Parts: sequence; C-alpha cells; structure tokens
Amino acid sequence: MIEHLDEEMRKRKVEAICVLGDTTLANPDLTYVVGGSLPRGGVYFKRARSDSLLVTNNLDLGLAKKYGRVKRIETFTDRGFEKLAAKHGRTKALPLFIASVLREKGVKGSVVVFGRNDLATGVNLVDELRRVGVKARGESSPTILEVARETKRSEEIEEIRCVGRKTAAIVDEVVEALRNLKRKRGHLQLGRQRATVGLFKTLISSRFASQELIAPEGTIFATGPSSAEGHNMGVSADEIREGRLIVFDLFPQAETGYWFDLTRSFIVGRADSKARRLYDTVREAQEASLDFLREGVTGEEAMSRACGVIERAGFRTLREIYQGRAKSIGSGFNHSLGHGVGLTIGERPYLSFLSKDRLKRREVVTVEPGVYLRGYGGVRIEDTVAITHKGVDNLGRVSNEFELA
Amino acid sequence: MIEHLDEEMRKRKVEAICVLGDTTLANPDLTYVVGGSLPRGGVYFKRARSDSLLVTNNLDLGLAKKYGRVKRIETFTDRGFEKLAAKHGRTKALPLFIASVLREKGVKGSVVVFGRNDLATGVNLVDELRRVGVKARGESSPTILEVARETKRSEEIEEIRCVGRKTAAIVDEVVEALRNLKRKRGHLQLGRQRATVGLFKTLISSRFASQELIAPEGTIFATGPSSAEGHNMGVSADEIREGRLIVFDLFPQAETGYWFDLTRSFIVGRADSKARRLYDTVREAQEASLDFLREGVTGEEAMSRACGVIERAGFRTLREIYQGRAKSIGSGFNHSLGHGVGLTIGERPYLSFLSKDRLKRREVVTVEPGVYLRGYGGVRIEDTVAITHKGVDNLGRVSNEFELA
Repeated sequence: MIEHLDEEMRKRKVEAICVLGDTTLANPDLTYVVGGSLPRGGVYFKRARSDSLLVTNNLDLGLAKKYGRVKRIETFTDRGFEKLAAKHGRTKALPLFIASVLREKGVKGSVVVFGRNDLATGVNLVDELRRVGVKARGESSPTILEVARETKRSEEIEEIRCVGRKTAAIVDEVVEALRNLKRKRGHLQLGRQRATVGLFKTLISSRFASQELIAPEGTIFATGPSSAEGHNMGVSADEIREGRLIVFDLFPQAETGYWFDLTRSFIVGRADSKARRLYDTVREAQEASLDFLREGVTGEEAMSRACGVIERAGFRTLREIYQGRAKSIGSGFNHSLGHGVGLTIGERPYLSFLSKDRLKRREVVTVEPGVYLRGYGGVRIEDTVAITHKGVDNLGRVSNEFELA
Repeated sequence: MIEHLDEEMRKRKVEAICVLGDTTLANPDLTYVVGGSLPRGGVYFKRARSDSLLVTNNLDLGLAKKYGRVKRIETFTDRGFEKLAAKHGRTKALPLFIASVLREKGVKGSVVVFGRNDLATGVNLVDELRRVGVKARGESSPTILEVARETKRSEEIEEIRCVGRKTAAIVDEVVEALRNLKRKRGHLQLGRQRATVGLFKTLISSRFASQELIAPEGTIFATGPSSAEGHNMGVSADEIREGRLIVFDLFPQAETGYWFDLTRSFIVGRADSKARRLYDTVREAQEASLDFLREGVTGEEAMSRACGVIERAGFRTLREIYQGRAKSIGSGFNHSLGHGVGLTIGERPYLSFLSKDRLKRREVVTVEPGVYLRGYGGVRIEDTVAITHKGVDNLGRVSNEFELA
C-alpha cells in the first residue's frame, strides 16, 4: 500500500523517490502515486518521512487535485519550468528542474527514479542529474513501488471489483450468445452470420466499449486445437462448432488504470469424455486452490496443491520441470497458477514454484489452473480474488457453466 | 526510415544500439525495430554497418519471423538466458546477457539503449552494463530512433492509410447518426434514447471495436462550451442540441501499432453567424495549409500561414505569444498546426513556430487549425497527410460537412 513507501525507503536507505512520465498511460507507477490518470503526466517527489509533491501541467491540475492522493500539487509554470527551458533547452531543463526541487527539499542521499519512460532519454536524464550532484540511481526488481503496489488499499480492491463486475457481465452475455446459436446447414449461426471466433471477438469488443473498458492486450477466444496453445489469441476464421472446446480469457482495464483477469471454458452442446475429464480436473484444481489460499500460505504451496490435483487425474504438470525431471511437458498444466493484478495485468505476488513469500492480506491474485491437450484443446478456469485473513474474496463472480446446450 | 539507422549512428559516433522491453505494447521503438507487435517483447541489437539480431521468447518467435524486418532472430533459450538466470538471478542475468551479445559482435564503443521501460530497473540495467565494461549511454531527444521513425517507408504509409480509411468510415457513420437524430419534446433522440455525448461515445467505441481499432487515449466528442477547451474530452451528460457546436476528434491505433488522427466539427441543424464564421475561417486555414505543405517548406512557415488566415478573419493566434506580445490569448487559435503521426500519436516533425527544419518526403503529419471562443464553442478541422515532393497525400479522406440538417 502507498503507506508502505516510507518503510520500504528506510529499509533500502533511499532518501527520496521521483516518479515521472509525460503521461500516466501505460505508466503504472506514475498512475499509482498520482492516484489516477493524468493525460500529460508530471513529476512526483517524495522524501522519506515527509509529504509528497506533484508537479503537473496546468491543464491537468484540476484532475490531479480531484484524486486527492497527493496533498501538495503545483504546476510546471508555477515552478518556473518554462524559464528554465527557455534558458537551457528542454533536455537540460528537466534534470535541472528535478535537481532544484530535491535541493529545496534538502535531499542529499540516494534518489531512485521511477516511471515508464524511453530508456535513451531516461538514462540521459539520470546522467544529467548525477552531473549536477544528485545521487540518482535505479533499483532491481522488486522495486520500492512494486512492493508498495503489491498489497491494495480497500478503495483499490473496490476499483478492481468494479472492473470484475463489468467483466462478469460480459461473460454472461457471451454465454447467452453461445447458448442461443442456431444450427443451419451443418454450421452454427449468431443471428444471420456464421458463428466464427472473429464474430465473437467483435461482439466482445463492443461489450467492452459499452462497459467503458479497454482491452489493450486483446482477448483470448480460442476454439479447438488453438485453445490448447497458451499464446494463441484465437483464429478469426475458426468456426464455433458443437462439441469443440472454447477458452475465453478476458483481461480488460478500466479508465482508473486497474485491470481484471477472468477465464471460462465452454463447449456448445455436449462434451465428449475427454473434454469432460479436462473440465472436471481443472474445476477441481481451481476449487481446491480457492479453498486453500489465505493469508500466510505461500504461492509455491498453492501451485503444488493445484499440480497435485491435476497429477492425480493423470496429467503432467510444471512440477516435472521444476524438479528437473523433464525439459518440457507438452500437454498438461504448463503454466503457473496465478499472478498479481492491479495497475498491471501481471505483477507480484506470483503463485508459482518460485514463490516462497507468504501471501498477505489485500494482495489481489488470479487463480487459473488449466490443462491442455496438444492438437485437441484446453480448459482453463480463472478468477481474480483478494487474499483475506481467512480465505479469498472473489472479485468477479460468474457462473461456472461448461456445456451450453 | 529504418534504413537511416546506420547514418544516424555514424553521425553520433554510436557503435551499437540495443532496444528492449518485455512487450511491444506502448513501446514504439521496440515495435519499430521488430516490425510489429510481440506480446513478450525481446532484445534487439544492431551494430553500425552490420546486420541486426533480435532475441525473443520462444512463443513469439514465429510472429517475429513473420514480420521479416530482422534477418537474424533467435530465442532466449537458444542463447542460454535461462542458464544465466539460474546462476545469477534474473536481475543480473539480463545485463550479462546483453554484454555477452555485444562482446560476441565485437562492440567496444558507445551503445545506446532504447525502449519504453521502467526507469528504476532500466537505470539499474545500464549501471550493471557499465560495471561489466559496456559503454552504455542514453541520448537526448531527438534520438537516433526518433529521427529514423520520422520519415516512413511506403508500407508504413499504407498501414497509416489503412487506419485512416477505417477512421473515416467511423466519422461517416457518426455524421449519419447525427443527421438522423429525431426531435422529441424539445430534445434530440438517437433511436429511443436522449442524444447525449455519453451515448455517442458508446456508439463510437463500438465502431472502433468493429473496425479492430483501439483508442488508448480516448476520443474527444465535445459540444457547446466544452468544445472550446482543448483538454476537454467531452462531458457524458451533455446533450446534443440544435445549433450547438460539436468537435469530434478521433485518434485510434491499429494492432500494427500505427495511429491516425482526424477531427471534424459539426452543428446539428443550422449554424448562427458566429459559428459559421468560426467554421469558414478554420476551413480556409486548413485548405491554405494543405495547399502550402510540401517537401522543403518548414513547419514554422506552415504555422505562420495558418495564423495569417485566422488573424485576417479577426481572431487571435499563438503568434502573439511566440513574438512576446502576449502571455496567453484565451480565445483564438491557441495550439500548433500539427504534429507527426506514426507508432505514436505525437512525434516529429511538428508544425509550430519552433519548427525550423525543412519537411521531408514521407513524413506523416496532422494539419489541424482550430479557433475557439471561450464559453461558446470551437471548431477544429484535422486531416493526417503524408508529405510528398509536390504537396500532400491525404491518408483519410472524409467529407467536410458542417451543418447537419
């Protein structure tokens, strides 16, 4: 949580942090410290055990004040940035500007710079800062901000739940559309059009738009053999056919910057015994994982339990690779159980064999076991949940149907 | 153009460049050198006067090869990255990996690092590279890649034209919807719903979705006084009313990473003389600018001419500020004439009073004069065009209607 910045800075002997960018778009650290989106970005300063300062463009000042996360907010104009730029050029002006604010705050120790920026100009900025005496440096991951962002405040969890509700509503609409497909001359139709992956993707995109969500990384809607390939977003021309597996994985983002991640797997009509076994196994693994997860357990333990369920059903898992018994497993459960969700769609904590840290209350993670049979199809079931002291709080409840007949 | 990398590297005495990121999403430099999008990003190397190398994730190898921009493409696994990570941890492994590739290529001079990345971990990476002897550095803007991206290859112009066609089709649909609004008890209705900005924004988003475009920075659809404020995206609750100005500014992005920028201004019903004067002035300024622009003229000259047209009609322009005659102008033409468009929605070249460079063939720019009356409304007309040796090639032709009656 943002309250943890001071503690993390103290642990790492960092006297100040500076988060910058010319937009908050695709800039989670800047979005986080600002408390929302600023089209023109800005520069955020925080000295250890002291209040923060945000410097923004005139046009974004009202927006920044509305978020209420930073108490002191000023504009570049107020602080004389344009004069510096006129005298030294814009490239030299930014480091001089940052150095002057740090000097004013009495910062003499280490300053870590954050924010998603072009590396060439960012490194240039840091070198200029060093030239004028600022002890600017980077950090290896997990950074101060990655650790702060890992546990969420209540209002952040509610933002994510809000995206979850909208995402669940879209799944319900897509399920209804799949259920109502009509058979015509050996093909399935949605209204008067052939039911293809492409048609469903257009439907899904329109639903995102009407829910005021965006999907910057796309949507997976894959059927048949494609659904067995983790990197396959779905082939537009593929037809929805009865008895063929569909994996539907949505990861939209709201205007607030918060993401959500939800997957359901279906079959239109009846499943054969192979598909049914995949589904039953994954569902059992997901329910076991949701039952097991709570404050104090580790991601590794959760991953291990999910693998246990899947192995007992006779499928291979990533455990073989982790234990050095295999180099790759082909079919089976070939990815991790989950990852954190917040202002990014993949962040700490992770639910994998490498995750030895104990989970904490207020972490938000996906729980997404899957089993894939190469050349046939796959099943994945995923929810996004908040960790609590006694279990999990499911942030996007949606029914768990499989056969849509 | 990408062919200019060698020349720019030579001019700046840079021996190699390295472009990296864990995704190409919101990472224009990496998208550019790769030739398309890679969900898991990668590391691109180019030594001066020598071929390039791209190292990707196994899952993205096929995609990277399909683009055909980089001849030599290998995977992290092929190159032993996992072994390095197992031995040194992932944080130390990346700089060691990059250093080993540079060593293999015989690079001893300056290496500039590129790609949109978190600054904290990026600066850490550069410091590690320096520790192991790589002469890594940044660059001030315009960077080697900014300059290369400034002029477009024919296939890039065609990608932008493709986004332009789709964008123009959406404008046509919105014009039709505005034209067909029905009067009911003193309000305008779209179908059975009150015609609000919010309703039109939903309609526009759905059209983006069906055209496979995204709008990561939103869409401006502003009416009445809001349309006079450059930073106002439009107020959802505002009603569309007869005789009230509407500014509709779209800036969508295609899956290829290329953007487009198009603005039209309308009035439902009849314009009063004030609105008509705004429109006629802006239209004349835009036509004069499109007529004037060609290879060899400067952005400053184009801006100055557009201001001339607008000043002769009796409105204030940015020229007063540029010449030091005013600090701000309030109403009038208060922004620049245009900016480059490509893998970003705002890049070189700029059409402003500060743009002394001569325009080159194959640059793609917006041409977007506007006049705004505070508290009343504004008009802006914008096209995106490619500069040619004898004029401009309009990449998204759309009719220029004003009164929709």
